[in-house]
Amino acid sequence: MLQNKYSPLISSTIEKITPLDQKAIKEAEKYQSSLAMPPGSMGALLEIGKRLSGITGRLHNLLPKKRIVVFASDNGIVEEGVSSAPQSVTLSQSINMTRYLTGMSCLARHFGNQVQVVDLGINADYDCPQILKRKIRKGTDSFLKGPAMKREEALLAIDEGIRLAIQAKEEGISVLGCGEMGIGNTSTSTAVLSVLTGTPPEEITGRGGGVSDKMLFHKKEVIARGIQINSPDKNDVIDILSKVGGLDLAGMCGFFLGAASVKLPVVIDGYISIVASLCAKRICPQSADYFFPSHLSEEGGYKIAMNELGLTPYLNLNMRLGEGSGCPLAFEIMDGACVIMNDMASFQQANINDSYLDEIRKKP
Amino acid sequence: MLQNKYSPLISSTIEKITPLDQKAIKEAEKYQSSLAMPPGSMGALLEIGKRLSGITGRLHNLLPKKRIVVFASDNGIVEEGVSSAPQSVTLSQSINMTRYLTGMSCLARHFGNQVQVVDLGINADYDCPQILKRKIRKGTDSFLKGPAMKREEALLAIDEGIRLAIQAKEEGISVLGCGEMGIGNTSTSTAVLSVLTGTPPEEITGRGGGVSDKMLFHKKEVIARGIQINSPDKNDVIDILSKVGGLDLAGMCGFFLGAASVKLPVVIDGYISIVASLCAKRICPQSADYFFPSHLSEEGGYKIAMNELGLTPYLNLNMRLGEGSGCPLAFEIMDGACVIMNDMASFQQANINDSYLDEIRKKP
Repeated sequence: MLQNKYSPLISSTIEKITPLDQKAIKEAEKYQSSLAMPPGSMGALLEIGKRLSGITGRLHNLLPKKRIVVFASDNGIVEEGVSSAPQSVTLSQSINMTRYLTGMSCLARHFGNQVQVVDLGINADYDCPQILKRKIRKGTDSFLKGPAMKREEALLAIDEGIRLAIQAKEEGISVLGCGEMGIGNTSTSTAVLSVLTGTPPEEITGRGGGVSDKMLFHKKEVIARGIQINSPDKNDVIDILSKVGGLDLAGMCGFFLGAASVKLPVVIDGYISIVASLCAKRICPQSADYFFPSHLSEEGGYKIAMNELGLTPYLNLNMRLGEGSGCPLAFEIMDGACVIMNDMASFQQANINDSYLDEIRKKP
Repeated sequence: MLQNKYSPLISSTIEKITPLDQKAIKEAEKYQSSLAMPPGSMGALLEIGKRLSGITGRLHNLLPKKRIVVFASDNGIVEEGVSSAPQSVTLSQSINMTRYLTGMSCLARHFGNQVQVVDLGINADYDCPQILKRKIRKGTDSFLKGPAMKREEALLAIDEGIRLAIQAKEEGISVLGCGEMGIGNTSTSTAVLSVLTGTPPEEITGRGGGVSDKMLFHKKEVIARGIQINSPDKNDVIDILSKVGGLDLAGMCGFFLGAASVKLPVVIDGYISIVASLCAKRICPQSADYFFPSHLSEEGGYKIAMNELGLTPYLNLNMRLGEGSGCPLAFEIMDGACVIMNDMASFQQANINDSYLDEIRKKP
């Protein structure tokens, strides 16, 4: 039974995930306290700087090559009428991303981020060489008619996510972002989050792309029923992902694990992305040390997931687009954190006198 | 009496401040609703885009030239022991800013923003040609011994702020940020905010650069006593600024008014900056249409001022450095808003079918 729990790649990936370099973090802390400012006054930028040091083992870091990986796939649950958009939007927006026409991708182009779109399960045949074809199946099944997919299929999707993180490392990427495209994936994410955290679906089901009041009521019912029918094992993330999740969520979960295994910082985008990151944390708690938040999503369950991860989003922009649209701006904030570590003067360089240093070092 | 209330420059500046171009805002709204995304899902980026259209009168905008103006001056109130840093830090950090060595200025250099440091009242003689000398007096007086400065001096400082905004417009700047350097200026800002809003000082006095518990108690007392001694007229912003404010605050207030008068968007930084922007709004309510928030400051009174301005900060980075350190990242967010207006595909371009459009347009 146990050898079946994870794929060999997942197991070896988990083994490679190590704690952050505590010595490097201590050195970063010491260095930061020498910088000419009231202690801690650059807030989250200092926290980011320390964590990057813990990841790379270096005091000074730069993040010149940034990549957002978008996991695209379809969800059978849309046949129950839980989404405002038709399934065809998954494909059309995936193609549009490769053309830098969507919200996330035009921001990514402006800020110089790479975008890699991966098809894990788009329910269509099409011709777009810019999309990486890793299709495991054409969409999942409705989880009202049984499990969304087989356990083996979820494991394959996780494997693909891991491979994409490893590929990024091999290609010299310095920081990753995790996005998605898949009509219906706020429903699957809510089902997964509900099981993972024991929160009733009616408390965390949101409007996703923008369903009406009537559809929202229906969406809650569908999610609750799906959980009841499939009764996933809350202690087995793969069971949850395969029964009420999706190929995108599974791929993203693997991507978060893979990023941690190759020591790459990875930015969480919105609701779907954070649920996937929480899946990764449940599989390997240590992996979360490599995750960075971006923006506060408007979707109901987002805050619950954020609390479980112990993170505070940097941006409050009232956004709810998905795609990875929060990553480009979060990358700029992380660049800012590097600038503070690399370019700011120390008290000594700033020629600020010793009695001030004595005073300021006594502060609470 | 009335001709004395403001300087001729302040009066003519107020007259030049016009409402935003409502036709341009309507067109921006219409354009945004044609973009391929669930309505409103880019949140604050859409709000920024609309407001920029209202300011420039154009649908598509770019902000290529960004400038942060830093108002430096000393505050006599430091002699009462309300600050953790010595007064000499105002000068040393002002010089360090011109060398791109401080928190704000190294971020500004990285993101390609200009930095202009202006001495309105540094209490020292020095030699630094990169600092613009507009010294009105060498620091203010302690407001426990009477008014911090004369009404005429506050008016002169406001005039300087207005001139710097006009200069920026003439030099082709597209967006401004408003920073400061002045040991003791969280005390003056709290005194001004307390009078402006009728909030008791003990509710909004914060730790500034990092005073101890004992010093915090003393700081509250000093501010309360200063207000009592000077009893500024809460309906006369100039009276408040001259009695319990500072030259930096007055200059910044003028800068916010000046920016609005020449139709330049201007970014509010932290606590001191937001109190100055509130002064500007009280002098001319219309001016606030040109103000953009940046980050949520940790200082106690910040939220009260933000609510009065009706703004929501974009960034939540736990920062409390001042200087204008929130402006560089806010500028990047505003650039992102321009990208959405300029580069994102419409539903038609994205080839998303008509039944979806019909459905999505019906949404609440």
